[in-house]
Amino acid sequence: MEGGDSCSPSMANMDDGEVAWRFGAKNPALAAASAQSIRALVYGMYACVDRSDPRPLAPLGHGDPSPFACFRTAAAAEEAVSAAVTSGKHNSYTGAAGLPEACSAVAAYLSRDLPYELSPGDIVLTAGCNHAIEVMMAVLATPGANVLLPRPGYPLYEARAALGGLEFRHYDLLPDKGWDVDIEGVEALADDNTVAMVIVNPNNPCGCVYSKEHLAKVRSTKERMCPLQETARKLGIMVISDEIYDHFAFGSKPFVPMGVFGDIVPVVTLGGISKRWMVPGWRLGWIAMTDPKGVLRRKKLRLKQILESIIVYRGISVDPAAIVQGAIPQIIANTDEAFFIKAMNTMREAAEICYQSLKGIVSITCPHKPEGSMFVMVKLDMPYFEDIHDDIDFCRKLAKEESVVICPGSGLGMRNWLRITFAVDPQLLEDGLDRLKSFCLRHAKFNTKQAT
Amino acid sequence: MEGGDSCSPSMANMDDGEVAWRFGAKNPALAAASAQSIRALVYGMYACVDRSDPRPLAPLGHGDPSPFACFRTAAAAEEAVSAAVTSGKHNSYTGAAGLPEACSAVAAYLSRDLPYELSPGDIVLTAGCNHAIEVMMAVLATPGANVLLPRPGYPLYEARAALGGLEFRHYDLLPDKGWDVDIEGVEALADDNTVAMVIVNPNNPCGCVYSKEHLAKVRSTKERMCPLQETARKLGIMVISDEIYDHFAFGSKPFVPMGVFGDIVPVVTLGGISKRWMVPGWRLGWIAMTDPKGVLRRKKLRLKQILESIIVYRGISVDPAAIVQGAIPQIIANTDEAFFIKAMNTMREAAEICYQSLKGIVSITCPHKPEGSMFVMVKLDMPYFEDIHDDIDFCRKLAKEESVVICPGSGLGMRNWLRITFAVDPQLLEDGLDRLKSFCLRHAKFNTKQAT
Ligand SMILES: Cc1ncc(COP(=O)(O)O)c(C=O)c1O
Ligand SMILES: Cc1ncc(COP(=O)(O)O)c(C=O)c1O
Repeated sequence: MEGGDSCSPSMANMDDGEVAWRFGAKNPALAAASAQSIRALVYGMYACVDRSDPRPLAPLGHGDPSPFACFRTAAAAEEAVSAAVTSGKHNSYTGAAGLPEACSAVAAYLSRDLPYELSPGDIVLTAGCNHAIEVMMAVLATPGANVLLPRPGYPLYEARAALGGLEFRHYDLLPDKGWDVDIEGVEALADDNTVAMVIVNPNNPCGCVYSKEHLAKVRSTKERMCPLQETARKLGIMVISDEIYDHFAFGSKPFVPMGVFGDIVPVVTLGGISKRWMVPGWRLGWIAMTDPKGVLRRKKLRLKQILESIIVYRGISVDPAAIVQGAIPQIIANTDEAFFIKAMNTMREAAEICYQSLKGIVSITCPHKPEGSMFVMVKLDMPYFEDIHDDIDFCRKLAKEESVVICPGSGLGMRNWLRITFAVDPQLLEDGLDRLKSFCLRHAKFNTKQAT
Repeated sequence: MEGGDSCSPSMANMDDGEVAWRFGAKNPALAAASAQSIRALVYGMYACVDRSDPRPLAPLGHGDPSPFACFRTAAAAEEAVSAAVTSGKHNSYTGAAGLPEACSAVAAYLSRDLPYELSPGDIVLTAGCNHAIEVMMAVLATPGANVLLPRPGYPLYEARAALGGLEFRHYDLLPDKGWDVDIEGVEALADDNTVAMVIVNPNNPCGCVYSKEHLAKVRSTKERMCPLQETARKLGIMVISDEIYDHFAFGSKPFVPMGVFGDIVPVVTLGGISKRWMVPGWRLGWIAMTDPKGVLRRKKLRLKQILESIIVYRGISVDPAAIVQGAIPQIIANTDEAFFIKAMNTMREAAEICYQSLKGIVSITCPHKPEGSMFVMVKLDMPYFEDIHDDIDFCRKLAKEESVVICPGSGLGMRNWLRITFAVDPQLLEDGLDRLKSFCLRHAKFNTKQAT
């Protein structure tokens, strides 16, 4: 080997075991955050799969339909990025808010569904919606502050809050009420140090879509009722609305952006092209200030400029690829409505397959038919099972025996529940759910086995 | 406006001024970090430029040659990304370490310059080298730990360390010794809680390239001499080598990767395609474990698995765009050596122009002719100036009066120095430096003006 050390030849033979290397990774904030890593949890299930199983793996664990031909993105979107690359015009660094023309295009795109116009300055582009979550949790991490998060939820919120030392408290989503927000629970949780509440709509993991009435209630509660009257409006809770599944509403309720109510409580909307365009690998998301009264910009009393802080954090964080930013105006302008309609029809069909199959499994309860996003939450009826310890045990054995990967509810705050995605090729979905059924039967107690 | 609040109509007219919104951005860690934002500093200079000045803006403030035709990336690189996009195969999420085939390609690419072979498992892909810095500062942020950073340096290290609560201490680079590391200073700084030292080579902002002998000394000091014998080897300091300017060596000294010495002290090399391929907008970087003895992987005594922590952090952080990751094998394989040679020739020419022009300015001292990276550090001889308060004042007035943007040294820990990039079109560079000269003359004290 080259590079022998002429200065201290004695070291060359030294056993590294003698060196007590100091640089352990003992960051407790990182350890706390990693406990919340859904990615690690789901990848852990993949690791259980028996590679010699000849059946195709059914990936019902995370929401990424992009590998399936029926969910391939619009040709216009691919062409837009390809053109941005070959133009040679988008090889450079971009500013901390993102490329101005891309911000403009996103502002106009979101304004279609709002009763007012967003301006380009209301938009900050991010490297996917995950990055938007990271930015917001960092910006809100004032010492002592807390944020209200849904349970079940999307654990990156918990992970990034933990990393920045931001306390989080969970309010419940109610399975018996179509997974609506437990508004009384929100009120009970909030206190003087509550700075924001997060809503995911359409909802991952529950597959519900919030009605306009429910959103108005979530919002108005924050003004009228006790103690949120004291907290939200007087002390000022901001609503962070995660709308990465915007327009993924294929049931009876239309998608209503929370920003519609931005005139009363400022709403920070998180979104991106990952889901609607089915290109999570492109990593383009955004933070939109749907705040027609400009509250988030005002420098008054204890309010600092949230938007400014967002830009500051973005300035020392990563950027989305310029070649995708540069393509955004064309991606939005040139994607035909027919693409979205076809994708939603396939998604509706897949949700239907999923729901019907699950109804046929006696040991699993599905409290609410999925009507949005790419997911459904179902409950394991544990007494039915012979040799399944809990949801994690269930998912590990299922991966091993059936090559079906599902996300255990424990990772989302719901022990003995499962989160199943139906955003896969319908044929493979059906096949995977059949295997899930066999698995449930095989692991049922003798008497329940007979009953089914 | 739609979306009036039927539940609490009284609120509709309420003046938001009455609401003491609680969600200020009072995160002190973010405030501390933002003080280190070089991006904000340089953008601040752009804001000073007089938009009515008909002369082209000379952007000598940050290292991004990609907008200039003479520095356009290799056609093969653009083709590789374009092909990755139109294949439809890289629209999906990627794993926390990155796409395996891209990791393999990077491992093979880096191994060309090492006396041993890296494996794909030694590589973690990041969204640019900035992201690699973020990951490492987060992973090392053990309570009480400190990291040694160069002064002048690249302030994102300070910013990300501050954000994670990791203490940093500055060792000096010595202008009179070709900007070599002050090795005695390093020894004096290190203590029991020092976990790593960062080296930037080729160096931003100094434009120097470290000789193999100097690197060996930096390394071997850490084994032989007191107190680093006590600290680095016995307690174990890791070397983080920022080689984003790898192969940007156009003087007499060749570029030697620090990983050549990885057998004695584990080296974590940070890099990417931003500079060598001149595509900072593509956002593809990496962390490479150049650690042939596997120290970073060992679970022993106080050493935890650094690599595992890196993956954990990446799992709750952002990902580089899959379309760029997917193109990496072709980008590396298909880029002709001629591209790099031509680019380095232009860079050498630009560095020469820069050095010669600067020598002609009496009130500016350039201690070391640039021989690498894209930058040179120069000292303002303050007594020569009539009405310039400090480097920041200098840069603001320069931007305003001459449409030349330069980064003040204060942002890099060197008050009354300037960092100038020569990675711009040579014609524009010459023009910008001429304007710099006029500016210096115009602001000189009367007697010095006569002397020049
Ligand atoms: C609720 C929610 N928010 C954010 C994201 C992340 O979106 P992106 O892929 O754009 O980072 C997801 C992805 O699954 C999600 O489910
Ligand atoms: C020393 C140093 N490290 C890292 C970076 C960031 O590289 P990237 O553009 O790949 O994030 C830079 C960019 O200027 C740099 O100068």
